[in-house]
Amino acid sequence: MDFGLDDTTTELHDKLSTFLAERIVPSEPVFHDQLAAADDRWAWSETPVLKELQAEARELGLWNLFLPKEHADSPGLTNLQYAPLAELTGRAGHLAPAVLNCAAPDTGNMEVLSLFGTPEQKERWLRPLLAAEIRSSFAMTEPDVASSDATNIETRIERDGDEYVLNGRKWWITGAMNPHAEIMIVMGKTDPSASRHRQQSQILVPRDTPGLEVIRGMEVFGYDDHEHGGHAELRFTDVRVPVTNLIGEEGAGFAIAQARLGPGRIHHCMRAIGVAEAAIELMCKRAASRVAFGRPIANQGVVRDWIAESRVRIEQLRLLVLKTAWLMDTVGNRGAHTEIQAIKIATPQTVQWILDKAIQTHGAGGLSQDFPLASAYAGIRTLRFADGPDEVHKNSLAKTEIARHTMEHTADG
Amino acid sequence: MDFGLDDTTTELHDKLSTFLAERIVPSEPVFHDQLAAADDRWAWSETPVLKELQAEARELGLWNLFLPKEHADSPGLTNLQYAPLAELTGRAGHLAPAVLNCAAPDTGNMEVLSLFGTPEQKERWLRPLLAAEIRSSFAMTEPDVASSDATNIETRIERDGDEYVLNGRKWWITGAMNPHAEIMIVMGKTDPSASRHRQQSQILVPRDTPGLEVIRGMEVFGYDDHEHGGHAELRFTDVRVPVTNLIGEEGAGFAIAQARLGPGRIHHCMRAIGVAEAAIELMCKRAASRVAFGRPIANQGVVRDWIAESRVRIEQLRLLVLKTAWLMDTVGNRGAHTEIQAIKIATPQTVQWILDKAIQTHGAGGLSQDFPLASAYAGIRTLRFADGPDEVHKNSLAKTEIARHTMEHTADG
Amino acid sequence: MDFGLDDTTTELHDKLSTFLAERIVPSEPVFHDQLAAADDRWAWSETPVLKELQAEARELGLWNLFLPKEHADSPGLTNLQYAPLAELTGRAGHLAPAVLNCAAPDTGNMEVLSLFGTPEQKERWLRPLLAAEIRSSFAMTEPDVASSDATNIETRIERDGDEYVLNGRKWWITGAMNPHAEIMIVMGKTDPSASRHRQQSQILVPRDTPGLEVIRGMEVFGYDDHEHGGHAELRFTDVRVPVTNLIGEEGAGFAIAQARLGPGRIHHCMRAIGVAEAAIELMCKRAASRVAFGRPIANQGVVRDWIAESRVRIEQLRLLVLKTAWLMDTVGNRGAHTEIQAIKIATPQTVQWILDKAIQTHGAGGLSQDFPLASAYAGIRTLRFADGPDEVHKNSLAKTEIARHTMEHTADG
Amino acid sequence: MDFGLDDTTTELHDKLSTFLAERIVPSEPVFHDQLAAADDRWAWSETPVLKELQAEARELGLWNLFLPKEHADSPGLTNLQYAPLAELTGRAGHLAPAVLNCAAPDTGNMEVLSLFGTPEQKERWLRPLLAAEIRSSFAMTEPDVASSDATNIETRIERDGDEYVLNGRKWWITGAMNPHAEIMIVMGKTDPSASRHRQQSQILVPRDTPGLEVIRGMEVFGYDDHEHGGHAELRFTDVRVPVTNLIGEEGAGFAIAQARLGPGRIHHCMRAIGVAEAAIELMCKRAASRVAFGRPIANQGVVRDWIAESRVRIEQLRLLVLKTAWLMDTVGNRGAHTEIQAIKIATPQTVQWILDKAIQTHGAGGLSQDFPLASAYAGIRTLRFADGPDEVHKNSLAKTEIARHTMEHTADG
Repeated sequence: MDFGLDDTTTELHDKLSTFLAERIVPSEPVFHDQLAAADDRWAWSETPVLKELQAEARELGLWNLFLPKEHADSPGLTNLQYAPLAELTGRAGHLAPAVLNCAAPDTGNMEVLSLFGTPEQKERWLRPLLAAEIRSSFAMTEPDVASSDATNIETRIERDGDEYVLNGRKWWITGAMNPHAEIMIVMGKTDPSASRHRQQSQILVPRDTPGLEVIRGMEVFGYDDHEHGGHAELRFTDVRVPVTNLIGEEGAGFAIAQARLGPGRIHHCMRAIGVAEAAIELMCKRAASRVAFGRPIANQGVVRDWIAESRVRIEQLRLLVLKTAWLMDTVGNRGAHTEIQAIKIATPQTVQWILDKAIQTHGAGGLSQDFPLASAYAGIRTLRFADGPDEVHKNSLAKTEIARHTMEHTADG
Repeated sequence: MDFGLDDTTTELHDKLSTFLAERIVPSEPVFHDQLAAADDRWAWSETPVLKELQAEARELGLWNLFLPKEHADSPGLTNLQYAPLAELTGRAGHLAPAVLNCAAPDTGNMEVLSLFGTPEQKERWLRPLLAAEIRSSFAMTEPDVASSDATNIETRIERDGDEYVLNGRKWWITGAMNPHAEIMIVMGKTDPSASRHRQQSQILVPRDTPGLEVIRGMEVFGYDDHEHGGHAELRFTDVRVPVTNLIGEEGAGFAIAQARLGPGRIHHCMRAIGVAEAAIELMCKRAASRVAFGRPIANQGVVRDWIAESRVRIEQLRLLVLKTAWLMDTVGNRGAHTEIQAIKIATPQTVQWILDKAIQTHGAGGLSQDFPLASAYAGIRTLRFADGPDEVHKNSLAKTEIARHTMEHTADG
Repeated sequence: MDFGLDDTTTELHDKLSTFLAERIVPSEPVFHDQLAAADDRWAWSETPVLKELQAEARELGLWNLFLPKEHADSPGLTNLQYAPLAELTGRAGHLAPAVLNCAAPDTGNMEVLSLFGTPEQKERWLRPLLAAEIRSSFAMTEPDVASSDATNIETRIERDGDEYVLNGRKWWITGAMNPHAEIMIVMGKTDPSASRHRQQSQILVPRDTPGLEVIRGMEVFGYDDHEHGGHAELRFTDVRVPVTNLIGEEGAGFAIAQARLGPGRIHHCMRAIGVAEAAIELMCKRAASRVAFGRPIANQGVVRDWIAESRVRIEQLRLLVLKTAWLMDTVGNRGAHTEIQAIKIATPQTVQWILDKAIQTHGAGGLSQDFPLASAYAGIRTLRFADGPDEVHKNSLAKTEIARHTMEHTADG
Repeated sequence: MDFGLDDTTTELHDKLSTFLAERIVPSEPVFHDQLAAADDRWAWSETPVLKELQAEARELGLWNLFLPKEHADSPGLTNLQYAPLAELTGRAGHLAPAVLNCAAPDTGNMEVLSLFGTPEQKERWLRPLLAAEIRSSFAMTEPDVASSDATNIETRIERDGDEYVLNGRKWWITGAMNPHAEIMIVMGKTDPSASRHRQQSQILVPRDTPGLEVIRGMEVFGYDDHEHGGHAELRFTDVRVPVTNLIGEEGAGFAIAQARLGPGRIHHCMRAIGVAEAAIELMCKRAASRVAFGRPIANQGVVRDWIAESRVRIEQLRLLVLKTAWLMDTVGNRGAHTEIQAIKIATPQTVQWILDKAIQTHGAGGLSQDFPLASAYAGIRTLRFADGPDEVHKNSLAKTEIARHTMEHTADG
């Protein structure tokens, strides 16, 4: 057992820290100004400053860091090596992941295309995604059914000659308000009569396909998140794409979704830890500088209790995320299943707690646009639902734990 | 001891319930449409539907219910009688308090003018406020100092002949983005060299006074709250008003502020309990109708645990708020000081917890514009700071408690 | 609505306060010395000091206060009147309820005999219980089945001519280690084939009946509670009693149990609030007197936070208990069903929290025999199981709440 | 970074697992029977079965595993290697640490003597301790002062010719009720006028020295812990020992205490994690086997939530303890200071929470002598005070954190 960083990670960590501090963080206001001046407020990925920073990042080798396997366009890091880097990007604010081309849902889409795409699909969609020439989205969640249960999905994908025809409704499709999110991976049912996990398929649908309507952007608290592409509600009415757009085979949709979930979750967790670190830093600085009743609030026992608890909790959480990354690297995503669930459960509740205390330390300003805390809280709060609510994952993890101690399946659901 | 409602309250409760259900709640979308179509998105109080509903409410005797003493324009309810009515308005959404002319900060301003205003001030400002012809705001909080400590206030009010001259900066001035918030009560220091609680004064400043700038609206979790007038940041630069605009005497500002805080807090608490009741209802309905893994989520033990805890907590909280109202009626605001602190502490944390669970029961939709839960959460969250953060009140309440058991002041701060 | 005490209650409250302070509390060490010197350490009810105090209490009219109806041996208080008195006894320590003949399980047994007993049963057992000449116990809980589900009971009560024959095992039979607990009400099944709630009967079994073995005393956190009769494990092997010992009719056992549960629970809650008040007082005194790092720990923000939270929580809880008492008085135990559940859920968790903080304020001494805090914690902790674990009650309360909002039973279990 | 166990640890882990399962755990009832039959109920260390098991452990090389440096009597493990072994002993119950001669406070005393003892002290006391021929205790805590603040200590150690004379009172001296705890390390003040951390000294006091009285055993909840030597209250009245009994030099007492605290704390944490693992196992088995309302309680969502949370929390905690061990090995106890504080804070609260849920899953039995849960709870609860309450450590950790973010000491205490 060894808790030190290896040389590759240390080196990239240093390089990325410098790039974040010197280039990305100072560019945040420029980005917001350029986006505010844009014709389409959702077209965040076309802001000139972002394009410039992306070029620099690519030059520096800070590009597609998330891509876990050797690839011409990535340094081929392990999950364990990527983790501290992803944390840094989470700490630095919304822009950083996009600058490094490590932003969801593009990351998951690139992984899926890399693993399951045909050569033609890779050339047409993966190549420009790896180069950040386009953005993408992933359409799974539906308004009328519990998204925690993939077998609930109602969108239909029906074969008609050389085409598939899609009908259905999706919402919370992250990034899809951005007109440059040119391609979408859609999950639907090709065969509702097949066995539970063989009914679903995934298919590529270009954004401009007739019959695909972008209805509205969903809000989270009062944020529409236009600065990273929003969360669209979509309607598919007789949307036709060629059969060659299918990813993998019919019925493989559930398995493909599983493949992306593990990495997707751990990336979220890594960045969320960075968010928590930023919050702790803000909380400490505020506590040290704010005076009430004649002394800095850093002297108040309750504020110190919050700060100590925050440090104690985040240290524990980070280690579990790192161990999970190590398991994914050494025994695979399936072998790390329980730990992936565990960090999916632990991360949002821990980080939400820390953000709440950081906000409280800031007074009303902490809830406002003057600090990044309330928007971070909104973002982290969504993680308690993303890929199914915590409660579903706790239920599943507990079943595993009970079975482990009783050597038999004693519980039915 | 008796836990039943009296006849007056029961009758008004029935009448108000009907009016809310039949008139106010159905008018909410109309209000939002009219406001969306208005020239000034902050001018919420001029929407025709609101004016109509106000006329109806006045006709029905559901007008100025908050005003605790006999008054030509109010039914003269006790706090204990008003409490269940205020809860109803909180349950019914944002529009209800305004329809009944029971919305903060106008309520507090009307109380202050009623208690401390000169005949001229009453005629000029209280009369139109009681008739809802204008709105108002109360400018106390400042960006650079901890608002929990009133002695920190930096805004200056300096006498110059027959005028007072104001200089300073304020923020979180609720309602002040509304151009029809014609009058503002401003707290500032007339004599920084006086004793701690005699430095402050309160003064009336019309919105159109030269030198008064409305800089921007503060956001709460991404909401600008324009539908009830927002929260303005203001700058006062050599703002001159006649000396007759002073409320009470120089140095009375702290005492006047104290007088409004008790009623202001309990009104917030009453409405917040209504918000919680609405959330519990939504949570139950959602749980009963939403199916996951083959059965309604109302069958899940964890969801039931949330619902039971919500009911158990809100019942306790309501009783404490009611007892506090009874104490205010029987022994006065000062005699109810500890209980007012207690409900100020207990209400936001209880209601926030319930809202969090109601949101979780709704999935991602619970955070969106499709349900009133996330915006309610944002609003309740601000109560943990309003009039000073919970921690300040806990500290003070604990000192009282310790002193009570030790018969001497053993703690210094 | 009115939150004041009536004159009867105020007068008894004053009288009882004086009696507790002047006579009962100073006698606690005498009681413990006498019990330590007794031949049978479980025979707590025969200590001379207790007998003396009981005579005084009876003389003062502080006797059988719990008995809710007019009765020659009681003042006939309502539940609402009894509540503040029961709280006082909880605050004063273990001895007080016994001195006033208001100690469980005798109270419940007296109520049952009073309501359902035959004249012979009343003469033989109720009369001496009302005079505190004997003690009693109530044998319901069984080791092999979940006691939260009364239909699980396995003890058999079988008719054989003029006798009933009992076979089975019971545990946690409070008070039954005391040799002077002369009579026991036993719950068992007379007809396992009857409908769910008609299988059970209750029957009187004298302690010296052949076949009844007292196996051992159960411990709670290392305490055997011998100073109030312990918690016995019992075995019934062909125990024969005359048919006239049956209480009510065959199959009435479940209904009789329900009748005692409401009052039993609320008495526990009232006393538990008294326990919490005692803990808050100890916590404040300790905080004011203990110096660490140069100042009293009462100056520490975290300790103040505990004290404030304790006060805020206990105020809310007490009001709910009082309202429940009022409902029991005005609409009956059945009408107060939800509130009785609510206080059963809320009381142990609130009081346990307060005790934990009071212990922490005392340092290691707080866990020891030098303060009454750890033993109180142990006692309160058992309330989270007594009459079924909290989780069962929450589940049931939530079903009621959901049904109330959906106008139909949507949940099955 | 690497989360796997090394070969040495894996091998010892396997060997110890087998020894625990086959020899130690089955011997627990024998131990309790032998102790119950002993003349002195506190003389636990002389039970024949313990002596036998100790001989076997020594034979197997499972002896003095805790001793971190190469030593003739130990395998010389690192903290990181010892951690998983200590966890195993915590999981297996009270007897295991003593069998392996790894029980507190002997471990700390052996470390202190090993590091700071003179050759004569080592020969006289360390040698028999390493061989488990005698036991020992460590007398620091005092009843009249906050033990979190070592400068409060009031016991005097005064030089008088060739002797030191001790006067003072101590309590919570673990193990000291055992007559075979032949030697005691006592902390007291040799020079109250020296600087804050140079006033204290440590000195060896044999148990049979005249003037040393063992007054009573302290209880924790209702447990006197006689099966591991209890917690004594002691009085020193003109207790004289030769000057050669001083450990190190005068004024070194505080530094010597610091040296033992780090290892002492981490050992407690490791074993506490084992306690939690045992509790989770019991909780799962109980949940799977206990039927209520027609199905195993393992099917109840709330029980599953507890189990999942327990797993998620303990995984995080263990990793932090392991990382702390690694830091102690690589950068030393001082370099691991913050992490040692963090695990001191996190461990008791996490394990206490898990034990509470395991108890609740067991119903009332969970609080009784039939399961090891309530006694474990009592033991873990004391860790929230041991070496100073959590609050003191949180306060200190927060100061470090704030300073780290502000680059200056902004807080005074």
